[in-house]
Amino acid sequence: MRLAELSERSGISTATIKYYLRERLLRPGRRVSATQAEYDESHLRRLRLVRALIQVGGMPVATAREVLAAVEDDSLDHHMRLGAAVWALPAEPQPAEPDAVDDAARRAADALLRRLGWTYGCEVGALSPAYRMLVAAIAGLSRTGYPCDVEQLLPYAKLAGQLAVTDLDMVEQYETPEEQVEAAVALTVLYEPVLLSLRRLAEAEESNRRFGSGG
Amino acid sequence: MRLAELSERSGISTATIKYYLRERLLRPGRRVSATQAEYDESHLRRLRLVRALIQVGGMPVATAREVLAAVEDDSLDHHMRLGAAVWALPAEPQPAEPDAVDDAARRAADALLRRLGWTYGCEVGALSPAYRMLVAAIAGLSRTGYPCDVEQLLPYAKLAGQLAVTDLDMVEQYETPEEQVEAAVALTVLYEPVLLSLRRLAEAEESNRRFGSGG
Repeated sequence: MRLAELSERSGISTATIKYYLRERLLRPGRRVSATQAEYDESHLRRLRLVRALIQVGGMPVATAREVLAAVEDDSLDHHMRLGAAVWALPAEPQPAEPDAVDDAARRAADALLRRLGWTYGCEVGALSPAYRMLVAAIAGLSRTGYPCDVEQLLPYAKLAGQLAVTDLDMVEQYETPEEQVEAAVALTVLYEPVLLSLRRLAEAEESNRRFGSGG
Repeated sequence: MRLAELSERSGISTATIKYYLRERLLRPGRRVSATQAEYDESHLRRLRLVRALIQVGGMPVATAREVLAAVEDDSLDHHMRLGAAVWALPAEPQPAEPDAVDDAARRAADALLRRLGWTYGCEVGALSPAYRMLVAAIAGLSRTGYPCDVEQLLPYAKLAGQLAVTDLDMVEQYETPEEQVEAAVALTVLYEPVLLSLRRLAEAEESNRRFGSGG
């Protein structure tokens, strides 16, 4: 299809598509003349992912480019590509100077992963942004004196495990490995606010059930 | 206790405590002389919450002040205070001009809440920031063509329901209603990165299990 049709089918303006092409967020189409290029379904799919990351997820263009580079890296096997792409998603920054609280948080995170038998997480450990985000979150709880020992974290981790099964079931509904990697990235980002808002709504229900004057 | 002891026990500098007093994030101590005031355990607890919101949660001072005002509003019953405080937590902004996609997202959110029997959520509906955040998240999925119908959202909502039970169990470990409201606010904020990072780590485990070359 030509640029005009790609724009119509994606609902994204030709100006924005040209910007994504210049920023190397979208692969160039197959050139058919000096001024025209031909695009296919993979461009349409990629555009959807770019929009998910940038327009909906609010990700900076440079970060999106890194995530997409991981999605496209054919040198990795399917699990590794999926991992690398989710890996490249930005996570909370870590404090500059790790102190005793950070060390204790790292030990708590390691103990939690071992306890869950998450051997992949144990191996990659500190290299993973999600692991560093977990350590920073535990350190934050610890610094403010809120409960964050392994017993307290365990039920959250088990529920996160169930969430991941739901996530991967949804990802597996996509046919090709490339579509699956793209969906894993988009659904990880786009379902975060779904999850956080549902948790707050569920807290209100549960609070009303336990403490509400009507209940 | 005097300011120096409050600083020592909380681990927060006297300069920062004075700043929180000036910004009305902390109630003044009981004045015992022209230059000295006496603080108690409630000040220590409040300082912990202020630090959770501002230093760890990264919340702007003005927003923290609103959340704390809700925590302190004695005119509300326990459930309402708890709700009002979590309510005041900032959520994702909504687009300025609702369109057909937003309307459909609102209908999907309503159908989901009815399906779950979350009657409290149905009643307060559009007034709640968490509800608006959910509608915005569903609209974002819909705009980018990712799955977001009620069947797809339902497993996430059920897991969110289980998270809320875990959250409220933790909140109920605190003794007084005031401590419970404070804990609900702090734990809602501080456990969000815990949950998101654990979900990403669990996704990596599940992906390794399903697609990994070793598994």
